[in-house]
Amino acid sequence: MPPHDEESTTASSKETGRVEAFSDGVFAIAITLLLLDIKVPHASESDVGLGTLLLRQWPSYVAFLASFATIGIMWINHHRLFTHIVRSSHALLLLNSLLLLGVVVVPFPTALVAEYFGHEGEHLAAMLFSGTFLLIAIIFNVLWRHASKHLLGHNANHPQVREISKQYRFGPLFYVVCLLLAPLSVGASIGMNLALAIFFALPRVSVQRRSRA
Amino acid sequence: MPPHDEESTTASSKETGRVEAFSDGVFAIAITLLLLDIKVPHASESDVGLGTLLLRQWPSYVAFLASFATIGIMWINHHRLFTHIVRSSHALLLLNSLLLLGVVVVPFPTALVAEYFGHEGEHLAAMLFSGTFLLIAIIFNVLWRHASKHLLGHNANHPQVREISKQYRFGPLFYVVCLLLAPLSVGASIGMNLALAIFFALPRVSVQRRSRA
Amino acid sequence: MPPHDEESTTASSKETGRVEAFSDGVFAIAITLLLLDIKVPHASESDVGLGTLLLRQWPSYVAFLASFATIGIMWINHHRLFTHIVRSSHALLLLNSLLLLGVVVVPFPTALVAEYFGHEGEHLAAMLFSGTFLLIAIIFNVLWRHASKHLLGHNANHPQVREISKQYRFGPLFYVVCLLLAPLSVGASIGMNLALAIFFALPRVSVQRRSRA
Amino acid sequence: MPPHDEESTTASSKETGRVEAFSDGVFAIAITLLLLDIKVPHASESDVGLGTLLLRQWPSYVAFLASFATIGIMWINHHRLFTHIVRSSHALLLLNSLLLLGVVVVPFPTALVAEYFGHEGEHLAAMLFSGTFLLIAIIFNVLWRHASKHLLGHNANHPQVREISKQYRFGPLFYVVCLLLAPLSVGASIGMNLALAIFFALPRVSVQRRSRA
Repeated sequence: MPPHDEESTTASSKETGRVEAFSDGVFAIAITLLLLDIKVPHASESDVGLGTLLLRQWPSYVAFLASFATIGIMWINHHRLFTHIVRSSHALLLLNSLLLLGVVVVPFPTALVAEYFGHEGEHLAAMLFSGTFLLIAIIFNVLWRHASKHLLGHNANHPQVREISKQYRFGPLFYVVCLLLAPLSVGASIGMNLALAIFFALPRVSVQRRSRA
Repeated sequence: MPPHDEESTTASSKETGRVEAFSDGVFAIAITLLLLDIKVPHASESDVGLGTLLLRQWPSYVAFLASFATIGIMWINHHRLFTHIVRSSHALLLLNSLLLLGVVVVPFPTALVAEYFGHEGEHLAAMLFSGTFLLIAIIFNVLWRHASKHLLGHNANHPQVREISKQYRFGPLFYVVCLLLAPLSVGASIGMNLALAIFFALPRVSVQRRSRA
Repeated sequence: MPPHDEESTTASSKETGRVEAFSDGVFAIAITLLLLDIKVPHASESDVGLGTLLLRQWPSYVAFLASFATIGIMWINHHRLFTHIVRSSHALLLLNSLLLLGVVVVPFPTALVAEYFGHEGEHLAAMLFSGTFLLIAIIFNVLWRHASKHLLGHNANHPQVREISKQYRFGPLFYVVCLLLAPLSVGASIGMNLALAIFFALPRVSVQRRSRA
Repeated sequence: MPPHDEESTTASSKETGRVEAFSDGVFAIAITLLLLDIKVPHASESDVGLGTLLLRQWPSYVAFLASFATIGIMWINHHRLFTHIVRSSHALLLLNSLLLLGVVVVPFPTALVAEYFGHEGEHLAAMLFSGTFLLIAIIFNVLWRHASKHLLGHNANHPQVREISKQYRFGPLFYVVCLLLAPLSVGASIGMNLALAIFFALPRVSVQRRSRA
């Protein structure tokens, strides 16, 4: 192997490394800031017990869990994509920044859903919630389309790459369903988001096992 | 050493690397956000001095310290486990996400304990506090059981691995004691949590020394 | 290759690595904290719908986007500079700390613009907004001037280094324009900041392609 | 070089790597959270202009700058120490956790100084401010004493190590002076902290140059 090649590989892996590190930081902070929207009920509101006060906040917990699960799965996907991506490009940096913009925004519609559940405006809140995830899923597709064409290594695992491409093509459709459910039933829409996160979490196991076998 | 093997090792160490980096980020943010629950008393409340105002908040400090120590010890344990784990798996990613969910949640029961200490509801707050740590300890056990079976390197230090497994089996039991103490005495329960963190911190020294000798 | 050389290279790349990791963390947190300034309107303000309440906050969104885009571009630039920088120096650490001070401060003028847009004081808020970015651009120049003289590798890509130097010389001038626009029109000044971020984002593609060809 | 040695070096550098990554995260978050204590004055307080409202907050800015500079210098020191530390130990992890506890706490006394400057209680606030830095400086000393005895590499630069040890021995004394100044003059005490950060920042340049020459 010529030394020049070796060096350029090291340089580009360093580039991807920082993109991943920065993304990890943003994912980690966004997923942790979600908790700030779960409020501590004040001790002075003494006519009902703490248990009742905490139970009344259940929409906060559901929205928190749905967002945590979705950001978590998105991080796992990000992680999986960057296992295949060995080069960086300016387009990758920009698409990744757009993706992170989406991830950073997530705590806002999450707080909206928690605040407006059961009040007027809950349908709009749920639409913004699913709409944010839909946008992130679309950006993920564009990023992966760019990366799978230009930034994979020579020894990229092609069946696995095609498998990811196939799965990703349908990802946004699921969030369209969540978005369309929002004006009908907020509970169904948020529940579908949670279910999607669990669904996206499970099949990967079989895919990885198959590709390793 | 065949080049294929070399490559797969590099690839998997990169995978574990990002899981660790993401986890480090979440641990670091959760441990830092704990401080946000320690409030600055307002300067205008002038009938008592700042010293008195600060001393009145002592339950905040104890809850902060207990949570800081516990998250700190959990990070050290996470760090220790991933010294042995050389491969990643989808199950590891999911279990690690569950673990991080627990860690992210910690500031909430911490704030509850600080707010409700000495008020009605303090026992429930203390139960949620210990209950969160109990859940994290259980997830740690499941994660380690999975990892110790499937994801260790060829040169995994077996006596050390078995030592960790033995120690972990008893971890949740201690938090069950904290949980059972909560309805009796909030102070005893929180104090036991702090004591546990210190206890978990100390014996590791001897274990590591023995295994290195 | 003599072992001594090898070692010193490893040591310095480790040094730069931590500077980059710390910077990534600060960039990631500052870019995520921007969201905290977008407030959730309270559900009880029932005379107007959620949609109206959200639309009224549009200056918050514009300020958020301009700051997100600018911090994002600054991170990409930071990343690009440190691809060339192979050694660390105390001056680099200090200049980098100053740069991070600027980045950390960004959410404050962003919140000022969002709060004061359309009120008395909006011109001052917009001047502080552009002034912060101007200061960061100047520090970037000083940092790059120091680094390009003292801290590049033997195989530093000289045309690319000169290209960056040329581009950077003009960076602060653009922010001076934003600063001068602020007392005339807040909208034009903030809009120019957003446009600058997009402009800075695009030309890099052609530069990188050319230098790789 | 025997392969076994090589491996153990890699393993321990990985250990130190995560300690550094976690510490970087905590330093980065603590230094960024400092900004949350600088409040945006409300637009409705219309009897005075924004400029006046902002100027009135000057103690916030000074406290922010002093804390930012001190945490920044502490990070640079941490970075410098870990350039020499090649092995990890449980004691290092514990001492480092104590150090991070100090760093995480810094935004609290900073907010106290900003809130109480010019009010009753300002002397106590300033004492807590300097006291926090004193404690951190002491922990730094203990950590370095442990590390310099047990965790340096074979090729550790001994004159540089002794230089650091000498410098560190006097660090806490300076913060004792800040602490003793606090009951006399809050401004002098905070100013001395800022001056110390600048002083600690400068001499390192000459030390590093000398040791590299």
